[in-house]
Amino acid sequence: MTTTSEAERRAMQRALALAVTPGVPLGPNPRVGCVLLAADGATIAEGFHRGAGTAHAEAAALAEAGDAARGATAVVTLEPCNHTGRTGPCSEALVAAGVRRVVYAQPDANPVAVGGAGRLREAGIEVVGGVMIEEAQAINRAWTFAVARRRPFVTWKFATTLDGRSAAPDGTSRWVSSRAARLDTHRLRGLCDTMLVGTGTVEVDDPELTVRDEVDEPVAVQPLRAVMGLRDLGPDRRIFNDRAETVHLRTRDPGEALARLHELDRQHVFLEGGPALARAFLSAGLVDEVVAYVAPMLLGAGTSAVADLGITTIADALHLHVTDVAVLQGHDGEDTNVRLTMKPLTTPRRA
Amino acid sequence: MTTTSEAERRAMQRALALAVTPGVPLGPNPRVGCVLLAADGATIAEGFHRGAGTAHAEAAALAEAGDAARGATAVVTLEPCNHTGRTGPCSEALVAAGVRRVVYAQPDANPVAVGGAGRLREAGIEVVGGVMIEEAQAINRAWTFAVARRRPFVTWKFATTLDGRSAAPDGTSRWVSSRAARLDTHRLRGLCDTMLVGTGTVEVDDPELTVRDEVDEPVAVQPLRAVMGLRDLGPDRRIFNDRAETVHLRTRDPGEALARLHELDRQHVFLEGGPALARAFLSAGLVDEVVAYVAPMLLGAGTSAVADLGITTIADALHLHVTDVAVLQGHDGEDTNVRLTMKPLTTPRRA
Ligand SMILES: NC(=O)c1ccc[n+]([C@@H]2O[C@H](COP(=O)([O-])OP(=O)(O)OC[C@H]3O[C@@H](n4cnc5c(N)ncnc54)[C@H](OP(=O)(O)O)[C@@H]3O)[C@@H](O)[C@H]2O)c1
Ligand SMILES: NC(=O)c1ccc[n+]([C@@H]2O[C@H](COP(=O)([O-])OP(=O)(O)OC[C@H]3O[C@@H](n4cnc5c(N)ncnc54)[C@H](OP(=O)(O)O)[C@@H]3O)[C@@H](O)[C@H]2O)c1
Repeated sequence: MTTTSEAERRAMQRALALAVTPGVPLGPNPRVGCVLLAADGATIAEGFHRGAGTAHAEAAALAEAGDAARGATAVVTLEPCNHTGRTGPCSEALVAAGVRRVVYAQPDANPVAVGGAGRLREAGIEVVGGVMIEEAQAINRAWTFAVARRRPFVTWKFATTLDGRSAAPDGTSRWVSSRAARLDTHRLRGLCDTMLVGTGTVEVDDPELTVRDEVDEPVAVQPLRAVMGLRDLGPDRRIFNDRAETVHLRTRDPGEALARLHELDRQHVFLEGGPALARAFLSAGLVDEVVAYVAPMLLGAGTSAVADLGITTIADALHLHVTDVAVLQGHDGEDTNVRLTMKPLTTPRRA
Repeated sequence: MTTTSEAERRAMQRALALAVTPGVPLGPNPRVGCVLLAADGATIAEGFHRGAGTAHAEAAALAEAGDAARGATAVVTLEPCNHTGRTGPCSEALVAAGVRRVVYAQPDANPVAVGGAGRLREAGIEVVGGVMIEEAQAINRAWTFAVARRRPFVTWKFATTLDGRSAAPDGTSRWVSSRAARLDTHRLRGLCDTMLVGTGTVEVDDPELTVRDEVDEPVAVQPLRAVMGLRDLGPDRRIFNDRAETVHLRTRDPGEALARLHELDRQHVFLEGGPALARAFLSAGLVDEVVAYVAPMLLGAGTSAVADLGITTIADALHLHVTDVAVLQGHDGEDTNVRLTMKPLTTPRRA
């Protein structure tokens, strides 16, 4: 049966919700949820993956079910893996448990894990794939991208006044973004596994580059801090403190930097500047998403938020496709900022 | 009785809707609606003001009601006027018609028309004012402002890329704004009674400065076109064509220009630049509203959308209060633009 029952679709919704259980730590693994159903559609057990080194979602659900898994249907957000990594292959575990049918959402594009569906079918298990595939891919957007493209997904974030400035003529810039926008930036940092800046920003701003909460305390699980550029940096720089891991990528080639981060199992880079680095990534076509915080403020002069990109005529403008606009309400008389999320369009377009 | 009945409040809602009847031409007069109610709350007649030189809303409703107005309650969005302009005073007309009670929303702040409520009370009519006053004021925002401040309300509109540019380094700027944003601009022009540019824009761009519809045809009722600056302009300039009235304000003083426009009964100026004029109005504190169209496009270099305002440090930034954010969806692969509507805050603020 290649169609799914209403109970299975409801179970997939539940599995998708389980996959994004709050507190699931970040790591190189995708977020996955699993629900085991009895023949009558009742839920036998649930499971989700808690991050690298812990049980996969299917294994967690099977462990909870015990013998009750025999004859059950496993509904899972990702095609069961077929390889022995830090845990054994889920395909074998499902076969061994006597599961009768497997319904999954997203195929596993990871070259080392692929083949789970085939292995299950060989063992005589009914398999249906692609159910709610878009919802599942959205949950693991960066993972899906990184597995398919063999490099991390890059989100470039910048803050600007309404007239395109990041600092006043005298260099002051505290604060262009509102508190709500700065908090929101920390939230987005926390959704990535790597934060990247150039050596210039480290020299000038000496940022700590951690994810902090509402009371400015670093959160428990920190993304990797990466700094890129050839020059040596003093070990006393705050980016090298013990609040998170840090890697210095001694290159000026964005492609090489991403290849190094891919080797380190990184899937989502939050590029925070400065201007030189942003330009290099934009020019190399290595920005996959742009997040701009627009402050309703006019300076009329000062540092440009975006560096010279070598564009001379309007037809060559870098166009972006707006995917989301959010109004970040200001409190206590603070400015309301606007966040635009966009995808760069590779070919400049004319209206 | 200074409280209002449910029927009266419903009638006021209806009167507010009548006031903004589509097609009511622009002009120096406020938009006003009126509903006449019988003692049992039933509607006897309705009226609205169609623009300068035509019957006031109350007169229109009284004419429709005839003798039935005797003993009725008049529900009207603006305090009945007390002066003989192009039409006679509404207060007298209501007295003569034998109306028993008048419920109005916004007091008439116009110094020549004021006193209607007092005149009605003298004649023994029950009067209740201030009902749904905010809704009524919003309908006649510019009129209310112009009457109180004795100058037109000024909306400054500009278009910018996400990085604060209005043209590329080679001067090309066609098109920064999307078609949807340009159409929206024409809609906003049509809500004003005056469009204002500097002589520089006329010299460089030679704009026609009319309100045009979806098929680029000029609409029937056009705002006044105003151009400001000392230099002479050739009579062949498109701004002087016969599609609308045009006035050349031979001054560089924004206050003087607004005073001249006030004398011409203008209440809402749509300031469209260029940069020199925008700076002059901003510096004089004579911008009451800012509308920015942000195009999701990066140029990295080129003409700044906002001219140097003489601001040197971040604490002196001109902060704006965001009152509305609208996403103008692009069609046929066109950019989605974002419109921000803002009020300038007079005192620069720090976060
Ligand atoms: N508006 C914002 O959102 C924002 C964000 C961050 C920083 N900033 C500001 O940016 C300023 C620093 O500017 P910046 O441009 O020097 O910062 P940067 O982009 O962080 O660093 C530039 C340095 O990165 C290295 N680098 C690595 N790859 C490169 C490449 N492909 N192309 C060019 N350089 C590369 C180079 O140093 P090596 O010689 O070491 O190779 C270069 O000098 C600071 O004032 C900071 O406040 C603004
Ligand atoms: N980005 C946009 O939304 C936008 C909008 C409109 C125009 N533009 C561009 O702006 C450029 C023209 O720039 P612009 O600054 O010359 O245009 P402008 O502001 O329209 O005109 C400037 C001229 O206005 C007169 N003026 C009147 N009052 C003034 C005052 N208080 N201060 C200064 N000047 C005053 C002066 O001429 P007199 O010598 O005659 O007094 C001055 O040279 C064009 O290239 C046009 O395309 C851009």
